[in-house]
Amino acid sequence: MTEAIRSTSSAAPSPQGGIARLRDFVIDFSTLLDASPSEAQILDQGGALLASLVRHDDWLPDEYAAPHPEYYSQYLLYADASERFSVVSFVWGPGQRTPIHDHATWGLIGMLRGEERSQRFIHDQGRWLPHRHPDHLRPGDIDRLSPSAGDVHQVSNAFDDQVSISIHVYGGNIGAIRRSVFTADGERKPFISGYSNDRIPNLWDRSKERRP
Amino acid sequence: MTEAIRSTSSAAPSPQGGIARLRDFVIDFSTLLDASPSEAQILDQGGALLASLVRHDDWLPDEYAAPHPEYYSQYLLYADASERFSVVSFVWGPGQRTPIHDHATWGLIGMLRGEERSQRFIHDQGRWLPHRHPDHLRPGDIDRLSPSAGDVHQVSNAFDDQVSISIHVYGGNIGAIRRSVFTADGERKPFISGYSNDRIPNLWDRSKERRP
Ligand SMILES: [Fe+3]
Ligand SMILES: [Fe+3]
Ligand SMILES: [Mg+2]
Repeated sequence: MTEAIRSTSSAAPSPQGGIARLRDFVIDFSTLLDASPSEAQILDQGGALLASLVRHDDWLPDEYAAPHPEYYSQYLLYADASERFSVVSFVWGPGQRTPIHDHATWGLIGMLRGEERSQRFIHDQGRWLPHRHPDHLRPGDIDRLSPSAGDVHQVSNAFDDQVSISIHVYGGNIGAIRRSVFTADGERKPFISGYSNDRIPNLWDRSKERRP
Repeated sequence: MTEAIRSTSSAAPSPQGGIARLRDFVIDFSTLLDASPSEAQILDQGGALLASLVRHDDWLPDEYAAPHPEYYSQYLLYADASERFSVVSFVWGPGQRTPIHDHATWGLIGMLRGEERSQRFIHDQGRWLPHRHPDHLRPGDIDRLSPSAGDVHQVSNAFDDQVSISIHVYGGNIGAIRRSVFTADGERKPFISGYSNDRIPNLWDRSKERRP
């Protein structure tokens, strides 16, 4: 018989850093959405929250930062039961990039590590053409996506020799949303991205910081 | 450069069984709480949802069903960002049991596998005394806890030679709540249980079932 009272948490975060940063971000973003804000308010206020999160690179557990040798990885970090929003770690191995794709919801991108390049595309006479120069995101930078403003893009690791990581927030369960990828000559294919991970971080163990 | 479009999910559930059962339960429970029900309504309607979940024992991934050789395990399966509710898998190794404890919130217990024994305690002249005979829960059985009705109990695996597992739902982030354990002679100690796991299941990959 074992009756020992012990904390069952391991690797619990300090209140100041570690996974607690992600937990606080998730709570704040959820509270923001509870107020039924407009998309513009979400992108503004949620963008500020995301900027605070990616200002520090001391909280993402290694298993959600690991590149795959062939494919870019998309690790779900949090999704709520209403599927109102999801938070995802995108990990780009050297030289990896997405197809040209849309999102079917608002999105926020916060650069955590390395550098990524986002090339917008616009539809023109049956083809998808690059629109302006690509944006470059460096650690701490935030980008926004809105379907109403045109959100078709292709994202690449800016580096051929190192890993880059960005944290994305979407207005739904992004891995489950029916959306599209495109070829440059305009062909559309239905796309549901899924996720790279079967396990997500346990954000909710506060036992170390609240130790009685 | 890798642009292949592929599902990044592995071990995705079928819509009928597997982890989708837990996802559907979490969504239904969250929807129930969205309507701001009374505790009695939560225990009734939420209890019915939990009964549906534990009617089948085909969905809990092995890593949240693994006993620890010394301690009972409490694996968080889901908590929402509002910390309104949490879902936990309690895994009892042979002969393991909890201390006498309270919960500081409503609770629902659904027996999934094996058998557990719950002994209620009442406070009497500075001591905690067993109250009535212990309850025995067998697969499919549901028990309820309400602080207002007296929720001090001690839970044991009814078996000395096999693992028992029950699924618990609480009205808060149970691993982080400040609550109490008691000795039989009435001593109270503050208690925050934490969780046994750093990773929780990713419930949100619907890419296999929605394959375009
Ligand atoms: Fe994108
Ligand atoms: Fe209990
Ligand atoms: Mg929620």
